[in-house]
Amino acid sequence: MISTREAISRLFKYKSVLEKLRTLGMVKVFSDNLADSVGVSAALVRKDFSIFGITGHKRGGYRIDDLIEKLNRILGKEGVQKVVLVGCGKIGTALMNYRGFDAQHIRIVAGFDTNPAKINPAARPPIHPMEDLARLVRAEGVLVAILATPENDAAQVADRLMASGIRGILNFAPAPLKSTAACVVHNINIALELDNLFYYVRLNASASENRNET
Amino acid sequence: MISTREAISRLFKYKSVLEKLRTLGMVKVFSDNLADSVGVSAALVRKDFSIFGITGHKRGGYRIDDLIEKLNRILGKEGVQKVVLVGCGKIGTALMNYRGFDAQHIRIVAGFDTNPAKINPAARPPIHPMEDLARLVRAEGVLVAILATPENDAAQVADRLMASGIRGILNFAPAPLKSTAACVVHNINIALELDNLFYYVRLNASASENRNET
Repeated sequence: MISTREAISRLFKYKSVLEKLRTLGMVKVFSDNLADSVGVSAALVRKDFSIFGITGHKRGGYRIDDLIEKLNRILGKEGVQKVVLVGCGKIGTALMNYRGFDAQHIRIVAGFDTNPAKINPAARPPIHPMEDLARLVRAEGVLVAILATPENDAAQVADRLMASGIRGILNFAPAPLKSTAACVVHNINIALELDNLFYYVRLNASASENRNET
Repeated sequence: MISTREAISRLFKYKSVLEKLRTLGMVKVFSDNLADSVGVSAALVRKDFSIFGITGHKRGGYRIDDLIEKLNRILGKEGVQKVVLVGCGKIGTALMNYRGFDAQHIRIVAGFDTNPAKINPAARPPIHPMEDLARLVRAEGVLVAILATPENDAAQVADRLMASGIRGILNFAPAPLKSTAACVVHNINIALELDNLFYYVRLNASASENRNET
């Protein structure tokens, strides 16, 4: 059984690869190519596509243009996706200036901070005081926010974001937040990711020691 | 069937919560509390623990100290975990100065960049030229690296990291990299995470529209 959530997450990865291939002037692609690039099996690529009604020709592969259009329809991406960011510390500021968003048509329209020294409405993106959050979110029709505050402020800021009409939060604060009926939260805890990685590195190291001993 | 990989990832989350509870002076915890905090069911918490041989008392809960010690033994974390970082751009620099790592005993011992203007051996952490990578990784016994270069350099830098003895890479470049037998790679693609979030926000919006219509 394939989890739809995981399939959706892979569809985004396929689409990202397809857009790069199209930029390179390529016209067709096989499930094997996508599988290699994303690091899954070709059977899984075909299964993911078939769940969402995308079919290809086993011999001829898929037309890249066609596939991107279908994926856009499924994943529902059109035009620029607006985001606000709360917490203009180091990580927050780096994200506000991150160029990797352009290619994905993601635009951080404004940053917000409680520290008066950080407020700068002339910056690009502008940085506003928290008092302006609800008004600006509504005026710009923003539905998604990046939360990059210190851990202790995260829950309170999340409440405020939801009350302002935000429906999705990408949370970089090390305090995990939970999704509600009105708002989806995805947590990215960088320290936990590193901890996890250390675990697998040690696991591999001890496995290779065991191999060497036998 | 519980995937061990996902169980391990949850164990890290439980441990992070437990450490915060201990800081608050708490002594005991129930699986329900951990479940609420991490956003899973209490049954799953108990199952995760039982996979790794941790048992509690249904009535009495778990002793926090005891649980942290057992989790440390399973997750194998001792002392400071050293990391190098390659690519001292905006995200890289933010990560080098990220205070959230201290609590997890993660220390970025050095940054590396190809741009001579960024080299600064007197900074904390110091920033060195790429030529010094292999020597410093070996001298410090570093096994894990954060990759934060532009997309086009990512694959080449990853090869160089592996050749220098790095066994685990946390990749922030938007080009996904694959694990090899000698090196585990975890990819964090922030733009893809946002795309994913937008999908669920739209999905919720259309579900609630449908509810309103009926």
